[in-house]
Amino acid sequence: MIGGSIGLAIKKRGLAGEVVGVFRRRATLKKALKRRAIDKGFLDIKDGLRGADLIILATPVSSIVSIGRDALKHTGPGAIITDVGSTKGWIAAELDKASAKLPAAFVGSHPMAGSERNSVEFARDTLVEEAPCIVTKTRDTDRKALARIVYFWKSLGAKVKVMTPLEHDRSVALVSHLPHVVAFGLAGAVPEKDMAYAAEGFKDTTRVASSDPHLWADIFLANKKEVINACRRFELSYKKILKALAKEDYRGIVDVLEKAKSKRDRFIHGRG
Amino acid sequence: MIGGSIGLAIKKRGLAGEVVGVFRRRATLKKALKRRAIDKGFLDIKDGLRGADLIILATPVSSIVSIGRDALKHTGPGAIITDVGSTKGWIAAELDKASAKLPAAFVGSHPMAGSERNSVEFARDTLVEEAPCIVTKTRDTDRKALARIVYFWKSLGAKVKVMTPLEHDRSVALVSHLPHVVAFGLAGAVPEKDMAYAAEGFKDTTRVASSDPHLWADIFLANKKEVINACRRFELSYKKILKALAKEDYRGIVDVLEKAKSKRDRFIHGRG
Repeated sequence: MIGGSIGLAIKKRGLAGEVVGVFRRRATLKKALKRRAIDKGFLDIKDGLRGADLIILATPVSSIVSIGRDALKHTGPGAIITDVGSTKGWIAAELDKASAKLPAAFVGSHPMAGSERNSVEFARDTLVEEAPCIVTKTRDTDRKALARIVYFWKSLGAKVKVMTPLEHDRSVALVSHLPHVVAFGLAGAVPEKDMAYAAEGFKDTTRVASSDPHLWADIFLANKKEVINACRRFELSYKKILKALAKEDYRGIVDVLEKAKSKRDRFIHGRG
Repeated sequence: MIGGSIGLAIKKRGLAGEVVGVFRRRATLKKALKRRAIDKGFLDIKDGLRGADLIILATPVSSIVSIGRDALKHTGPGAIITDVGSTKGWIAAELDKASAKLPAAFVGSHPMAGSERNSVEFARDTLVEEAPCIVTKTRDTDRKALARIVYFWKSLGAKVKVMTPLEHDRSVALVSHLPHVVAFGLAGAVPEKDMAYAAEGFKDTTRVASSDPHLWADIFLANKKEVINACRRFELSYKKILKALAKEDYRGIVDVLEKAKSKRDRFIHGRG
């Protein structure tokens, strides 16, 4: 979905001479060609890397490092490898290390756009437009490669922010991984017979619980420490409501809800 | 919002000779007239009740009982009073009692449709179409009045289910009140500076945290016991994910997420 969307966006904006996709499965390759998300597709990474200037790793978090190492080995000088993974600490540390003695550079990226629908059929060329995109910078990051990756995401219309992998993992645990834990927890808590009475509120609050369980188990594990920290913050906030409710403290409940609402409202209006 | 939407729907379907609104504020009355959600509006409940066959109480939960008592006193034989409140136990008990020696009948309703946007400007005539609508039945409920209320909501296109107030409060705590507690808790937990990196997942998961804090403090308090029970169920489900994560148990995490996802997916597809 995200790889296909980036392919469509690059082609729409004419940012590359050729968009080449590498796939595990021939069926996905065919779908991507049909969708015109790529100009050419391969099943062997070596074929796909030949002459590539920019390599975007759009695989599940758990395979980015191994595929990235492979890609670094088969890529020439001047080429840049980036990824779109939802965690950055481990990926950046491993691929910084792997690229140290090789001609290609690695810069981590995370376009904050996605969907619970995880397949090239759902790709769209506007996916990253106006979306936040975090690009990570470490002591080892090549400065020119960093500038080119920032320029690349800006060319696709994303709002780019550069930070360290740790800053990324902390923020993203809060705004993305935590909502997934909570949504899965919520969908898991409600007996199916009661769902018959669910309306839009339940549907929206649990939307991301329809995401791919394997992808998200990977992400939670790759960012375990920060996900657990974010969950602790959530529990404190959630328990404030329950404590005020147990005491039948109307004013106390309203205070907690008002703070949460006004923060969210400012965020929504800030985005326009 | 909900009162106005019902007014618009009744008028669109020609279900009443006249739709009369009663308001606390003249400004809202004017907006409702302008929006054509009502034919006539009053600020005094006695004026609004004159000759009414069906009275729908669309006020915050905390004032439904007092306004309902008032309405019962000023309503003649054959008239039916219903409400659209998000909790039913306390409301039904009090209004059953109040109607016992009066000519008008009370039947509790809860159309499960709404929005975080709480004003007549957001009213729409399709709000309750296809929405679940719970109608409550107690030992004291007049059977003919019950049948008329069921017929009324079906005429607006709602999917009606009759149950006891307690069954209502239990189910709705799970599918509506709990998601609100969780969404407010989540919006409250995330520091504003991190929200800059939030994408659609966060936006959807917290949407209902933009709801009115006073309305929701009322609802939580009116359904305290069931809300707390629903929260306990949520905590068990949420903690299963965290425990598997702490143990770095990939299979365990996937299992919990898969159960939650498949339940939600069946619910979404079941709705078509």
